[in-house]
Amino acid sequence: MSRDPRLARRASYRFWTRDTIRFSDTDMAGHVNNVAMCAYLETGRLLFVREIRLRDRPPPQRGIAAGLNVSFLRESHWPGEVEIGCGVVRIGNASLNIGGGVFIGDACIAAAEMTIVNLSGSAPAPFDAETRAKLERWLLPVV
Amino acid sequence: MSRDPRLARRASYRFWTRDTIRFSDTDMAGHVNNVAMCAYLETGRLLFVREIRLRDRPPPQRGIAAGLNVSFLRESHWPGEVEIGCGVVRIGNASLNIGGGVFIGDACIAAAEMTIVNLSGSAPAPFDAETRAKLERWLLPVV
Amino acid sequence: MSRDPRLARRASYRFWTRDTIRFSDTDMAGHVNNVAMCAYLETGRLLFVREIRLRDRPPPQRGIAAGLNVSFLRESHWPGEVEIGCGVVRIGNASLNIGGGVFIGDACIAAAEMTIVNLSGSAPAPFDAETRAKLERWLLPVV
Amino acid sequence: MSRDPRLARRASYRFWTRDTIRFSDTDMAGHVNNVAMCAYLETGRLLFVREIRLRDRPPPQRGIAAGLNVSFLRESHWPGEVEIGCGVVRIGNASLNIGGGVFIGDACIAAAEMTIVNLSGSAPAPFDAETRAKLERWLLPVV
Repeated sequence: MSRDPRLARRASYRFWTRDTIRFSDTDMAGHVNNVAMCAYLETGRLLFVREIRLRDRPPPQRGIAAGLNVSFLRESHWPGEVEIGCGVVRIGNASLNIGGGVFIGDACIAAAEMTIVNLSGSAPAPFDAETRAKLERWLLPVV
Repeated sequence: MSRDPRLARRASYRFWTRDTIRFSDTDMAGHVNNVAMCAYLETGRLLFVREIRLRDRPPPQRGIAAGLNVSFLRESHWPGEVEIGCGVVRIGNASLNIGGGVFIGDACIAAAEMTIVNLSGSAPAPFDAETRAKLERWLLPVV
Repeated sequence: MSRDPRLARRASYRFWTRDTIRFSDTDMAGHVNNVAMCAYLETGRLLFVREIRLRDRPPPQRGIAAGLNVSFLRESHWPGEVEIGCGVVRIGNASLNIGGGVFIGDACIAAAEMTIVNLSGSAPAPFDAETRAKLERWLLPVV
Repeated sequence: MSRDPRLARRASYRFWTRDTIRFSDTDMAGHVNNVAMCAYLETGRLLFVREIRLRDRPPPQRGIAAGLNVSFLRESHWPGEVEIGCGVVRIGNASLNIGGGVFIGDACIAAAEMTIVNLSGSAPAPFDAETRAKLERWLLPVV
């Protein structure tokens, strides 16, 4: 489980998307299923990457999802909507940790770090200076 | 495939919900997968049933989903949102056809009839007069 | 709802696939969700189409899924496996109805007709004689 | 990302389940989507917990999924089947880490640690001695 307390706070995020809780997102325990939570986070992360134009880098650079570390914090229910906040947690040499929180109102129901590896062709490649500068503008605030 | 042309027209519907196209809704053909379309329609239908208070009827009456007849009309893509319109297509003795259309802007990407069977316990039971009157107010307009 | 009684009988089918009921396939009603049923049927149909080599036809011919008409016949539960039988129900001029049944043991939990439209480029195109002959060998038995 | 190298080795696991890769598990990148990977792991974990009879403990003890830490190791494709191996990675005072690997043949396509918190009512509660002994028999082998 990720232990960065910023991930579960609304105030940490400047980029937001939303999703609809579907009836098929629930499971026989009566709650929203954890797999649905992973789907909300994936869409949030990809829209964030799009927004910060991480994908504008010249080919053959591209990022691939290498890991997801999610804490399931509260049970949630159908029907309703979730808001997903995203930001940058850590910029490595050739990898990036994106933080995401799934919220219903002020309650964080799931918080995650998602690791992206930067590839040039099929080999990990360091981020260039411009990309790094762009990513730094989206770092979660230090508290 | 359902052939009622009203199902694919925005103007047919007065009840609307929306859903977010998730990245995981797409498939290797590059489009939104048809299974996701069924998920959008299910949530739309259930929120419609809730809205018209079909579930307020005294127990042991309840409705179960008995059928889905959906036409896939256009390819659609991530990212984006869909709007789902719902209304009543046909009121039978102990069953009900709910119509639904999934739209992106004015384009209908899927149109469906969904059959609900009214049960009292586990046996089909006719709708009472009050329920029938309520359902009639939501009939799709005749064109 | 499809009314062809053959669709719900094990003996109708010669082509079989299977799927695993996932915990995330269940919903808050405690059963396997209808959307999961549509996913089982889609995979069954696509593997059937692959098996009968419908896709070997010379380009630009291809089939697209145009409709799904499914009856939900019984509630089912996690955990478990389903078997999906598929066959040909009707061969039209430029379209094809594939029948599918989802079974747990001898019990049919969902039965469906799935419409495929044959396209040449983006226009519907009649099946050639060889394809038609191939499809006829997979027609469900008349009872 | 989880770094325990045992998680990605077939030889680490004695408990196995399998799942079918569905067409709807793929995404527009052409691979099996990461959310589907989370669904495979969830079902594997729950069947493992069932197998080792972790759920036989007297009420009100129960386990809840608190976290998922998954590494996506290889791209995979439709159609096909996956095998999911599960075992115990770490037994804490009131929590448990279950390891899981998703395999196609000998290739590990995803490896995960899944945290379960033991609750008595709504408060974390230490495992009793009998449960602890049971869990120890399923620890992944030390290498």
